[in-house]
Formats: sequence, structure tokens, C-alpha cells
Amino acid sequence: MTLTTVSEARSYTGTQGVYRHASAATGTDMTFAVYVPDHAPGATLPVVWWLSGLTCTHVNAMDKCEYRQACADLGLIFVCPDTSPRGAGVADDPAFDFGQGAGFYVDATQAPWSPHFRMWSYITAELPDLVAANFPVDMGRQSIMGHSMGGHGALTIGLSFPDRFRAVSAFAPIVAPSQVPWGQKALTGYLGPDRAEWRRHDAVALIEDGARLPALLVDQGDADPWLAEQLRPQLLADACRDAGIDLTLRTRAGYEHGYLFVSTFIADQLRWHAAR
Amino acid sequence: MTLTTVSEARSYTGTQGVYRHASAATGTDMTFAVYVPDHAPGATLPVVWWLSGLTCTHVNAMDKCEYRQACADLGLIFVCPDTSPRGAGVADDPAFDFGQGAGFYVDATQAPWSPHFRMWSYITAELPDLVAANFPVDMGRQSIMGHSMGGHGALTIGLSFPDRFRAVSAFAPIVAPSQVPWGQKALTGYLGPDRAEWRRHDAVALIEDGARLPALLVDQGDADPWLAEQLRPQLLADACRDAGIDLTLRTRAGYEHGYLFVSTFIADQLRWHAAR
Repeated sequence: MTLTTVSEARSYTGTQGVYRHASAATGTDMTFAVYVPDHAPGATLPVVWWLSGLTCTHVNAMDKCEYRQACADLGLIFVCPDTSPRGAGVADDPAFDFGQGAGFYVDATQAPWSPHFRMWSYITAELPDLVAANFPVDMGRQSIMGHSMGGHGALTIGLSFPDRFRAVSAFAPIVAPSQVPWGQKALTGYLGPDRAEWRRHDAVALIEDGARLPALLVDQGDADPWLAEQLRPQLLADACRDAGIDLTLRTRAGYEHGYLFVSTFIADQLRWHAAR
Repeated sequence: MTLTTVSEARSYTGTQGVYRHASAATGTDMTFAVYVPDHAPGATLPVVWWLSGLTCTHVNAMDKCEYRQACADLGLIFVCPDTSPRGAGVADDPAFDFGQGAGFYVDATQAPWSPHFRMWSYITAELPDLVAANFPVDMGRQSIMGHSMGGHGALTIGLSFPDRFRAVSAFAPIVAPSQVPWGQKALTGYLGPDRAEWRRHDAVALIEDGARLPALLVDQGDADPWLAEQLRPQLLADACRDAGIDLTLRTRAGYEHGYLFVSTFIADQLRWHAAR
């Protein structure tokens, strides 16, 4: 697997890089960002996987989420993948919440999405192997976090690989895609109408079906315009309560949905990850 | 002067807003961003003017410069104007370093630029009046900073209004536009070929002509690709030495030109402003 360096530049006490590679999982070129704090020669650092939301590429978090200072201070490598395959030969949809920029972290089984929309395999298998082979990461110390659709990704992947991630958290996640319009549209489109196929990609359903984690952390702004219709954090709170999962759900008064909210609290979430 | 609120959202302990108004100076609509930390009812706060570089709008600094945490902690209002007039009826040039996005903080006297490219009047007169009338600013405690072309703007405006600004600083500024290609192209285009007209818009020339400030702070990355050809900070160091101006010029080893450099050190510059 050959990695092309798109850019590298010093930021805080570390290096922000952007890299591109030909992905076997998606059958396209994929681009991702990695921040590596300064470290002793030969040392390895814990790695935090960041999954972005609808419409995002690797650029949005890199530009706006303000994670570098905390990662430099805490010694955390921070990886920002894209949210879908892209390109001229890749299926797309004009809506912002489906198609390119909206991969929903699943392996699509339905036409025309199945040839390239394989973000589950990309994020859970191919990209970790690539990062492990090319960056000074300690793969025994991984954690995962994400925002909105990426919060959905972080929760579902975290719940599916409980031994891989030492910490799982999210900002304003889609906690139950089977029960909200964004998720119903995407899961129908990518996985088909059989709702049994959706449960592996729905955090609340995964917990109902027995998935467990020792702890979850979620920040949610109470001025988020998507709160009541698309996010519905109470569904996650109820599922965690019934399952005995230690969920910390912090309602942030006055904050909305975007990076102005995420950047405010990401250092706090990163400290929670680093402590684990 | 009517101000339209484009957006307002909570970030850190304050509010990031974007506003639009019909500008008398430029004859166009102008958009700018203001961050206002939480404050007691009726209180006023010091204001920092941020001037951006080539190609930027108000968005670049707002998204990427990571000023909000420091401004919230220090109680500083932070204003990000656009870098030029824009729109269908406004002259433009296909180059990135001239025309829209590259106003160079001058009042153009040459066709076709003179009708709208009046960024000096906009930044030094119209926008301060507008901000004073609409935000809780203490206009007795102003400071100014900027990046690249905006560093040029901060230095020339700071040197031209020594009683207005308590602190003046810059990141990777164009210190002597009369002596470098970006500046020569812009000043010729906007002000004409008479170099005597350029001196009021050249920080080094202003200092040579007698302008004084008690102190200046400049951060410059030594991996900046524009360092030797366009920025030439030694010209400012020499002028300040000859004039007895207390310049702190910090060379930052390994850092480049963009926001990954600026965001690393902006909290440090803001603390320097707040101390004044």
C-alpha cells in the first residue's frame, strides 16, 4: 500500500500531514489527515480516530476542530479520514445527506452504491493497517470519536470492536439511525429495506442486541437544530441505562451543531480519551 | 448603517457572529465576523482588529486561526473583516494576488479599481464606527494584528494611527511592499507608478519617514516559502533598529506560512495585546 504525501506542515509541537492512497476497500483514491505530535525517535503514541459528519472531507476537522493543541499536549496522534469514496466514477446523489460525503460508515450492499461505498471496511480494516504501517502509532492504545454522522460511526464501530478502543465518544451523534430520517434514508439506500440488516449500524440497536462498552462520553448542544428530529440522544441514554453502560451525556447549554460547538469541547473529550 | 446578522453561534464562552452591511466606503455589501466573549450587562471589552491575507474573506480566520479560546479567556472582542470589495459589479483580476481578495488595505486611485477598492477608508473609518455602534467595544482599548498581506495592513494602519492602537503585531507580514513583487504589483495597480504615493502604505517606508510606535511584535516561520522573496522581515528589523522602535521579531523554526503556523502562536500574540 503506497502512501502519497499531499502536504506536511508544522503546527503546535507536531506535524499536520495530508496523505492519499489507492484504497482496495473503496476502489478509489482516498485522502486522510494525520497529526503527529513531536516524539522521541522510535517511540510510538496512542492514536485517536476522528470520524466526520455529513458533507465533510478530511479537511473540515483539520481546519476547524482545533484538536492540535490538546493532541500535542497529550501526545495523541489524530487521524481524520474522508466520509465516503469520491470521484467521477463513483455513484452520487444531489442531496447533502446521501451519496458522496455521506457514507454513513457502512459497506453498501445495494446498487449503485455497493461497488465503492465500503466505508466500514475502509475505516475498520484497511486504514488502520495503513496507518499502523506508516505512522508511529501504538495500536494497543486506540480510541475513536466523531461528530454527527461521524458520531454514529464512532459509536457503532466502538460498540462492534470493544477490545480495540480504550475510549469511545461523540459530539452530537446520530444515535439511532433506524429511527430518524437521515438514517432511514441512508440505511435503506445502502443496505436495502430489511431493517434486520440495519441493526449492526445503529448504536441503540447494537446495545439492545447485547453490545457493551465500559463507558461512553457524548457532548450535545441544546441549541442544535437537528436535536429533536435526527439526533435524539435520549434514545441512547435509555439504551445505556437498560444495558448498564456508563454513559456520560453532557448537555451544553446554548451550543449548536457545528465546529463552533465541537472545537469548544474537543480538548475536554481528548483529555477523557488520554486518561484511558 | 444597518447591520444584518448572517449567523451567530456560541463558541467557547462567547458568541461568534457574522454580519453584513452596505458599505459607503466600498459601495458594495461587506461581510465581517465578530467574536464577543461573555461579559456583564453594560460592560465593554477591548477590541482586536484582525486583517487577513491574500485570497481570504472573513471566513478563513474565523474557521482556522483558533483565536476564540484565548479571546474568551482574555476578554477580547475579535473582528475579522474581508480583504476587498466583492461582487459582480466590482473589478477583478484572475491572479490570486491582485483584485478581489487582495485589496492591500489601500484606497485605490487608479482605474478600474478606484470606485470600490477603498479598504483603507473601510478599515480605518467606516468599520470602526459600525462596530462601535453595534458591539460592546471599548474604543479606548483597541489593538490590531494581521497575517501576510494583513500583516502589512496591521503595520501600516498601526503606524498611521499611533494613538488609536495599544498594540500592533503581525504574522509573516509583507513589511516593505515597495520592495517585493506582490507589493509592487498591487501598489502600481491600485495607486499608480509614482512611488512617492506608495510610502504611506509601506511599513518600512513609514518608519523611514518618521512614523513611530513604542513596540511591535512579529512572528515569522523560517520554513515560510514566501520569506525571502515577498516578506523580508530583516527590512523591518533594520528600519526599527535605526528608528529606535522596540521590535520583537520571533523566528519560529520549522513553521510555514499558513494557518497551521498562525493558530500555533495566536494565543501568545493575543496575550501580548491583552497585557497592553
